[in-house]
Amino acid sequence: MPEYGVVGTGALGGYYGGMLARAGRDVHFLLRGDYEYVRENGLRVDSVNGDFRLPAVNAYSAVDDMPLCDVVLVCVKTTENGGLPDLLRPLLRPGSVVLLLQNGLGVEEDLATRLPEAEIAGGLAFICSQKAGPGHIRHLDYGKLDIASYNVKNTVVLNKIIDDFRAAEVPAELSEDLQFARWRKLVWNIPFNGLTVVMNTTTDRLIAHDSTRRLTREIMLEVILGANRCGAGLKESLAQKMMDMTLEMIPYAPSMKLDYDNRRPMEIKYIYSRPVETAARAGFCMPKVAMLENQLRFIGDEARQ
Amino acid sequence: MPEYGVVGTGALGGYYGGMLARAGRDVHFLLRGDYEYVRENGLRVDSVNGDFRLPAVNAYSAVDDMPLCDVVLVCVKTTENGGLPDLLRPLLRPGSVVLLLQNGLGVEEDLATRLPEAEIAGGLAFICSQKAGPGHIRHLDYGKLDIASYNVKNTVVLNKIIDDFRAAEVPAELSEDLQFARWRKLVWNIPFNGLTVVMNTTTDRLIAHDSTRRLTREIMLEVILGANRCGAGLKESLAQKMMDMTLEMIPYAPSMKLDYDNRRPMEIKYIYSRPVETAARAGFCMPKVAMLENQLRFIGDEARQ
Repeated sequence: MPEYGVVGTGALGGYYGGMLARAGRDVHFLLRGDYEYVRENGLRVDSVNGDFRLPAVNAYSAVDDMPLCDVVLVCVKTTENGGLPDLLRPLLRPGSVVLLLQNGLGVEEDLATRLPEAEIAGGLAFICSQKAGPGHIRHLDYGKLDIASYNVKNTVVLNKIIDDFRAAEVPAELSEDLQFARWRKLVWNIPFNGLTVVMNTTTDRLIAHDSTRRLTREIMLEVILGANRCGAGLKESLAQKMMDMTLEMIPYAPSMKLDYDNRRPMEIKYIYSRPVETAARAGFCMPKVAMLENQLRFIGDEARQ
Repeated sequence: MPEYGVVGTGALGGYYGGMLARAGRDVHFLLRGDYEYVRENGLRVDSVNGDFRLPAVNAYSAVDDMPLCDVVLVCVKTTENGGLPDLLRPLLRPGSVVLLLQNGLGVEEDLATRLPEAEIAGGLAFICSQKAGPGHIRHLDYGKLDIASYNVKNTVVLNKIIDDFRAAEVPAELSEDLQFARWRKLVWNIPFNGLTVVMNTTTDRLIAHDSTRRLTREIMLEVILGANRCGAGLKESLAQKMMDMTLEMIPYAPSMKLDYDNRRPMEIKYIYSRPVETAARAGFCMPKVAMLENQLRFIGDEARQ
């Protein structure tokens, strides 16, 4: 059975790592501020699918104390990716897979440049979860994982990971095309993350107003056209599907809005700048996405002053 | 000597009407909330070019009490243009000129449709002025008027108006092309009015940050290209000129930001919607201006709740 490492034990890492641990997998959690608390008290997950506690988990405050892992789930925000190579190097042996459970475009590419020995896969988490307190995760809705290889040599291990997640009651699927999967999720993330911050609102209010509903759909279409110029092959009908899906969701503050409200840095680089640059290199201009990027950079910097 | 009517005696009407009255012209001021105060105390103008008081002015609370006027300066916000025909009809005789000192595109066209007998000109005011209190105007900077005919039959009267303003120490010029003049002013108004509201900031901070400086310039260029598709013939270098001019201005909250902060309706229709529609009819898409329009409509409606 593969040994799992979890780098970043928050809303995402605490949930997915916790689910694997509950199902009996070996999971090693890297923590920062919550380390003492979790070492003493374990993890608590309040989930729509049933609450559970893990009274004793393998908790670490430094990667050097952790064992080598077969699979490392990277669950930190992309704003911390600068430190990733140093965090990952001590955990990997030949054949280990780094699974980046992060939003945006280009995270695998950047990590591969700086850590060429790593075998990397990307994961898209379709989940509403929050950190409720130290070692305490609140899972509100959804939870599916889409996983795709970036440069994994032996994809058998990816199927093994998917089996483990499924055995842990986490819906998981292998996607053939990482770029397709990443762009697909951006169709939702780009309008809703940015507009909830810039308009200081929630997804339901954006959709309830004619002007922002139209704008949201236009931005989705811009992302779809940009993605397709990059070869993603998304259907234009995806925009309407995502609008309908969001209508059915509970009023929701996306992760970037929570980051902004809690004065944490926003994931502008990988959710906005990289898609804009990538589409531009393919000859496609995304004016509305670029405008949102510039507005977010201003707001983020002003908030920090 | 022509008799002047001023419809809307606020930051603009109080200043320009006050300057004409100080120079000895017959000026009749229509007021609402300030009527009693101004009838008792007259007008006070604190100007960078010298403060003055007009202890007794012709003040009215209803157009039916006013004399027929040769020239009517319309100085209300465009958000009140729905009521303009009823306000103007009692003031006009054949040959009277309505001078719309308003921002945006299409105000003359809309008034002409609803008041076909009126001879209409447009005026662009390049001025920083505020209402400081009842009957009290604060003139902070600039003040030039560009005036152009929309459907004035005998343009001699426009030259007479310009002479009167110049005699009253108001720089004024006759512009040959109303659409050129209106689009030219929109190159400044569209980015700065909207972005100061959406970003909740002032012109100087927008320019100080790389992202919003770039965005501001991009929006200016979009407006210039849209204007030119409509035949305005603006130079692209105008964008840089306006950026430089704004850099030299004192930190400034444009009129739309003041409207928003004071919970008054914003002039979205004529500053955003009409330019977007007009350019679209000419086959030019202005995605950033349209995005700003949608953001402003959301913000305006949310603020009203």
